[in-house]
Amino acid sequence: MESNPAPTASLVIIGNEVLSGRTKDANLAYLGAQLAEMGIRMMEVRIVPDIEANIVEAVNALRARYSYVFTTGGIGPTHDDITSACIAAAFGVKLIRHPDAMAVLAAHYAATGAEFNDARKKMAEVPEGATLVENPVSKAPGFRIGNVYVFAGIPRIMQAMFDSVRGELTTGAKIASRTVSCRLGEGTLAQGLGAIQTRHPGIDIGSYPYFAGGGFGVSLVLRGTDEATLDTAAEEVRTLIRSLGGEPVEGEPVR
Amino acid sequence: MESNPAPTASLVIIGNEVLSGRTKDANLAYLGAQLAEMGIRMMEVRIVPDIEANIVEAVNALRARYSYVFTTGGIGPTHDDITSACIAAAFGVKLIRHPDAMAVLAAHYAATGAEFNDARKKMAEVPEGATLVENPVSKAPGFRIGNVYVFAGIPRIMQAMFDSVRGELTTGAKIASRTVSCRLGEGTLAQGLGAIQTRHPGIDIGSYPYFAGGGFGVSLVLRGTDEATLDTAAEEVRTLIRSLGGEPVEGEPVR
Repeated sequence: MESNPAPTASLVIIGNEVLSGRTKDANLAYLGAQLAEMGIRMMEVRIVPDIEANIVEAVNALRARYSYVFTTGGIGPTHDDITSACIAAAFGVKLIRHPDAMAVLAAHYAATGAEFNDARKKMAEVPEGATLVENPVSKAPGFRIGNVYVFAGIPRIMQAMFDSVRGELTTGAKIASRTVSCRLGEGTLAQGLGAIQTRHPGIDIGSYPYFAGGGFGVSLVLRGTDEATLDTAAEEVRTLIRSLGGEPVEGEPVR
Repeated sequence: MESNPAPTASLVIIGNEVLSGRTKDANLAYLGAQLAEMGIRMMEVRIVPDIEANIVEAVNALRARYSYVFTTGGIGPTHDDITSACIAAAFGVKLIRHPDAMAVLAAHYAATGAEFNDARKKMAEVPEGATLVENPVSKAPGFRIGNVYVFAGIPRIMQAMFDSVRGELTTGAKIASRTVSCRLGEGTLAQGLGAIQTRHPGIDIGSYPYFAGGGFGVSLVLRGTDEATLDTAAEEVRTLIRSLGGEPVEGEPVR
């Protein structure tokens, strides 16, 4: 255990299309895994529509509470791309055209032959005081202001933007995990599992039932920063499963 | 357009495992689609950890703001299943063992031969004043209290619970959609698309770029309750795409 509190993160996924359930977000899986490696715990995700009041409220609530806020989506050139304006409103600052972003985009469109029109110039707008986050994939930059990182929604671009900033994030001890699955009922495991959790308060033990292969099973996921404790507790879980007549399987069975 | 405001919904996804990004939520896609059919608009999703304060805050914020709050996850028998206790705390009522839930579970475990132990009795606990939501799949019920519906996290069970309650929800005009895709850049489309949105304020037009088949494309999604307006606007989008040298494709191309 560290003496400093571990850094925390939150994610605001912006967009009616994700919220409607039709487009599945792929950014949480990536960010969650990357941040866990860096010892930064994802604490809350909000999926909000393309409505200014909702975006502003989510960003302001989360930036006050967690070390980092990441946002994805809504920084393109179309009428429904309102993230930059919303972040400016959240911070109470003006939206400006960033000269470096204008230069990057002007060069990009000069090279591709596409017109650098007003819609595309919108992608150079950032809240006053923001600094740019490089986008090696398609040039239009993200930005950071305070503890808020504003990324594109397309996973390939979001990941490149995260790579551009990962070196500047305050890290903690890597959050590692062990997963043991079995076909016992959760109600059969619960008492013993609770006792293992009580013996090891420094780790989180989660029980995740699933339905696969015509029956229910359960994955027991142990998560924490102390690898030795995780190994000890995982062995206790395996012993518990065997003592109840089950067979522990490492990792998660294929769904 | 109806004269009554359309009903709205929100979803609280409870569980460290979804928040970590390792387990992908499948319930938003289902709920979002079902609710859109019923004219209930999904307005906000929060993914929160297995921590009481976080769950209580999310539920109380959302139940004050939207017609319905659905929650998924955390109603099983293990130590990390704290949703029922959190909903009781959110409503400021006691957690009680519901006699009907006790009876359903007692009969179920008598039939299966599994012990009806204390862990399993935990699944009969609901906030005082809650009424049960039937679970035809695995018996342990969900519940409703006020405008909050508490469901299991396993999609198969969540869907069965939703089927148990769908008849009691206040519906609105079905939210329909049209999707037209093309390989033009968003920046090329933006001005004309914004003009179409301005001409049809009663619908929402979203622009969703994607990367597939070695290049970028964009899906234009029109959403609203007036089918005739959607048809008119979708035709305007197709005409716009052709006027810019693109080729409109119905629906979303395979990712």
